[in-house]
Amino acid sequence: MRIKILTLFPSMFDGFIQESIIKRSIEKGVCSVEAIDIRDYSNNKHRHVDDTPCGGGAGMVLAVDVVDRAIKANKGDNSYVVMMTPQGKTFNHQMALDFTKHEEIILLCGHYEGFDERIRSYVDIEVSIGDFVLTGGEIPAMAISDSVIRLLDNAIKKESHEDDSFSTGLLEYPQYTRPIEYDGMSVPEVLLNGNHKLINQYRKKESLRKTYLRRPDLLEKYELSKEEEKLLKEVKEELANEE
Amino acid sequence: MRIKILTLFPSMFDGFIQESIIKRSIEKGVCSVEAIDIRDYSNNKHRHVDDTPCGGGAGMVLAVDVVDRAIKANKGDNSYVVMMTPQGKTFNHQMALDFTKHEEIILLCGHYEGFDERIRSYVDIEVSIGDFVLTGGEIPAMAISDSVIRLLDNAIKKESHEDDSFSTGLLEYPQYTRPIEYDGMSVPEVLLNGNHKLINQYRKKESLRKTYLRRPDLLEKYELSKEEEKLLKEVKEELANEE
Repeated sequence: MRIKILTLFPSMFDGFIQESIIKRSIEKGVCSVEAIDIRDYSNNKHRHVDDTPCGGGAGMVLAVDVVDRAIKANKGDNSYVVMMTPQGKTFNHQMALDFTKHEEIILLCGHYEGFDERIRSYVDIEVSIGDFVLTGGEIPAMAISDSVIRLLDNAIKKESHEDDSFSTGLLEYPQYTRPIEYDGMSVPEVLLNGNHKLINQYRKKESLRKTYLRRPDLLEKYELSKEEEKLLKEVKEELANEE
Repeated sequence: MRIKILTLFPSMFDGFIQESIIKRSIEKGVCSVEAIDIRDYSNNKHRHVDDTPCGGGAGMVLAVDVVDRAIKANKGDNSYVVMMTPQGKTFNHQMALDFTKHEEIILLCGHYEGFDERIRSYVDIEVSIGDFVLTGGEIPAMAISDSVIRLLDNAIKKESHEDDSFSTGLLEYPQYTRPIEYDGMSVPEVLLNGNHKLINQYRKKESLRKTYLRRPDLLEKYELSKEEEKLLKEVKEELANEE
């Protein structure tokens, strides 16, 4: 997969591209990630890309002609153009899976006041990462790139994302490592006795408990197996007894 | 405000700290942002900070003792410790506003498989930026830092965030700038005639239209003024006529 990021701040991606699984995925040829400066498509000698808003108001607006040229110059036949905007559809794990099917993704980042409205006609989808406001689309573009790349074949070991929160539809079970005792807190006994059937059951139950307590909305959308139904019933009984 | 980021990848923040409003806010003394290497708190000569999960399974788990030391060494009396985890409360604009009230925020980032469960007892709040999985907490920490810093006094002009999507409770109205005509699309007439009363009314109405079409869930939580009620009614009639 090729990821091209259209941005006014390409150097914001330096640290992102040079670290961790992104770097390794690029080296292994799993994907390419390129940050492209929108200013290269200004046809103004001062490299201006924005102007004051029509009708007045604070801030600046990214111009439609510059962005159209930047998209056209970088877009291939199979590119999927994604605009980063708080007004877009909220990004989630399913969208990350859908994005992995594209050969090339172009992530368009605005900065400060935002886009000329007409720019929306040149993109395939508008995406937001959540109900909060950021200075620009660069951090959302990193979030989307990272969550998509890690799902690509050979980016990370398959087992590493099979148990992730949201991949299964539930929150992840609690994890523990050494030291076994710390500050009065111990690793649960069941994880130390090597009985894999009991360990799996414990993990399934605790994953259900977490989801029930923290994100009941996820549980509502989840299809419980017979075994999970039984475990969830136990969780509810235990919680009722604690009260 | 001081923001301290505990991470295994401090250099991922280089581009973030050196660009845009973050850089200027640091220079103006509005805030400080520091990325601190969790490995500095390993007491192992190989600087290991993680270990295999008790009970088996893929990946590595960040150890409770290392993280506890990292937090204790950096925490002051008024620090608010925030853990980045997909299992946390979903970050939003209201949370960003709440975070601005703290003198110091410590953002704890895991990487790969996640945290020893006992680490949760050393943090004040667990936060997620959305229902998708990332390689680590670094990108969420940037998102939170950026959205909090821009709300601090003197970070950016106040007018620049008063009309933002989510600040008002509605999505932002459409913005336009020159060229007035482009690729068969024009800037709406009303924005060109200089009548500020009409411009304000247009913007309010289009903000309601966007929110109604794209995020009816936000509109349900929003308290409409008499004027907005009238405008929303007009929007609905116009949409019914279009069908």
